[in-house]
Amino acid sequence: MELARPYLLFLGDAPDALAAKTAAGIVDWRRDWCLGQLRLEGCRADLGLPEMSPAGAAAQGVRTMIIGVANAGGTLAPHWIETIVAALAAGLDVASGLHMRLGDIPAIAAAAGRHGRRLIDVRHNTLRLATGKGTRRPGKRLLTVGTDCSVGKKYTALALERTLRQRGLDADFRATGQTGIFISGRGVAVDAVVADFISGAAEWLSPANAPDHWDVVEGQGSLFHPSFAGVSLGLLHGSQPDAIVLCHEPARRTMRGVPAPLPGIAECIALNLACGRLTNPAIACVGIAVNSSALDRTAARHYLDGLAAAHGLPAVDPIADGVDAIVDRLLAVVP
Amino acid sequence: MELARPYLLFLGDAPDALAAKTAAGIVDWRRDWCLGQLRLEGCRADLGLPEMSPAGAAAQGVRTMIIGVANAGGTLAPHWIETIVAALAAGLDVASGLHMRLGDIPAIAAAAGRHGRRLIDVRHNTLRLATGKGTRRPGKRLLTVGTDCSVGKKYTALALERTLRQRGLDADFRATGQTGIFISGRGVAVDAVVADFISGAAEWLSPANAPDHWDVVEGQGSLFHPSFAGVSLGLLHGSQPDAIVLCHEPARRTMRGVPAPLPGIAECIALNLACGRLTNPAIACVGIAVNSSALDRTAARHYLDGLAAAHGLPAVDPIADGVDAIVDRLLAVVP
Repeated sequence: MELARPYLLFLGDAPDALAAKTAAGIVDWRRDWCLGQLRLEGCRADLGLPEMSPAGAAAQGVRTMIIGVANAGGTLAPHWIETIVAALAAGLDVASGLHMRLGDIPAIAAAAGRHGRRLIDVRHNTLRLATGKGTRRPGKRLLTVGTDCSVGKKYTALALERTLRQRGLDADFRATGQTGIFISGRGVAVDAVVADFISGAAEWLSPANAPDHWDVVEGQGSLFHPSFAGVSLGLLHGSQPDAIVLCHEPARRTMRGVPAPLPGIAECIALNLACGRLTNPAIACVGIAVNSSALDRTAARHYLDGLAAAHGLPAVDPIADGVDAIVDRLLAVVP
Repeated sequence: MELARPYLLFLGDAPDALAAKTAAGIVDWRRDWCLGQLRLEGCRADLGLPEMSPAGAAAQGVRTMIIGVANAGGTLAPHWIETIVAALAAGLDVASGLHMRLGDIPAIAAAAGRHGRRLIDVRHNTLRLATGKGTRRPGKRLLTVGTDCSVGKKYTALALERTLRQRGLDADFRATGQTGIFISGRGVAVDAVVADFISGAAEWLSPANAPDHWDVVEGQGSLFHPSFAGVSLGLLHGSQPDAIVLCHEPARRTMRGVPAPLPGIAECIALNLACGRLTNPAIACVGIAVNSSALDRTAARHYLDGLAAAHGLPAVDPIADGVDAIVDRLLAVVP
């Protein structure tokens, strides 16, 4: 799926900033693609973008309205429908990362048909995927992997893309989850594909490319998460990364959503490398990315220095420190 | 889902015997249910059943035609449609284990409606699955794992169920693929669930049970298969097996369907145990099951003796030798 740009970000009646975190992520990483925001009465989120109506957005050149707000249950609120229909009538596509499909709402489906616009449910891909083949393909690839879910794999991948580009290298972030897809305009929600096609989806996502091109693939889950490890392994095999970056959140006490302990960092790196060798024998770990927001800066510095010494790898907080140290190592290890 | 019996087995234009393994498995374990086979021009598989047309099968009392041929992408060949429509017209239900739904093909859907027959897609369960939790549950579990796809994991599991029952133990084969579902009448095609729910499907399949009850879970794929390893890992985590049996086919030169080498047996056992410990720290390997049909009996005996000595495990061909030696070890290791 490919989203037409630029975007209008629909914030609905988000009760707080956190409810609009999908939209906030898009603005953080793709400010230039976001021409405006559309807020309903009672909305408490504000991304600082110009307020636009659907018609006003269309007049400014907007091509897609993104439903950038989540509510409890992941459903689409009935009082949003009128605005979505107005966006379609104004000539915009509408894209959503909600569980509920836009096209399952009759008024929205009818309006899309009437105005010839696309409804894009990024959680429900309609690709005809092939099974993974494991064959080596040209181009370089990096995958962010994690000790757990929600430890910063997407942010780390985006920071790596940005830094590689700043250094004049050809690099593309490859999205594997809904927010990432809005940020990159393209991608596949790998946790939503049929299980036989996980590695095939990853191969589709990062196809053969120029020998010096970097795909920076957003990781999902963890090989140590009892709910989602299968997704992580298929993504590892299909991405056939030359390099991995291990992502970790030191304040986490149990795996997200289940009462299981977190793996050790060395153990997690080792299993990712052992499994990754199946499709790329040269796979190497080039750094550790830590979400240290729960620590003060002194404690974070101490913790990161300890990790770097223990594992012989650059260890950074991508948001606080940037990822230059990891990119330095990456370019030394994979020339 | 309850399939009406007996069956007519549709082999299509299977290019070799392995492509018709679904049909062959049904014949091997439920010969009494299979009245005939239907082969198209160019078919190179032969199950030795009477050749029947749809009308001839209906006259013999057949109730369901099983699409007994598989291919890597799980697609339905357009030139099969005419025969499927003829089966429905003759009064048969049609059951398929392909990824593609029978009812998504307009000519087939129309014929089923016209003749009032059922279309049964065993790969498309209508369960509302939960994500896996990894929590320990009572009951004993064995999972067959493999160096590759199609190396005898289902046969080994069925043979283990049969032998455990012969010894008076309470044991159930748990089907995870289409053939197993046709054989057992129950199960979930784990390669067809949404990727987020692989381990959840395995937990549903082998729920909490009596402390001395054995679930013998049919393995899928291989942790070393670049197409399907994610399915294998989710199944391993969700099954939380007390014991695994490693299945292998020594004549195999590359992984099925891809030009990758096979893993070593020790390496394959070690990775399954390392990953399996996440949800069952006591996991142990209790035997090696070999499909030695490509070897003569002397060579097979020599090969199996060598494996047993090298790995300190019983090594048998389940079809030629039975699985008593593995069950002996199983009951010694997991009292």
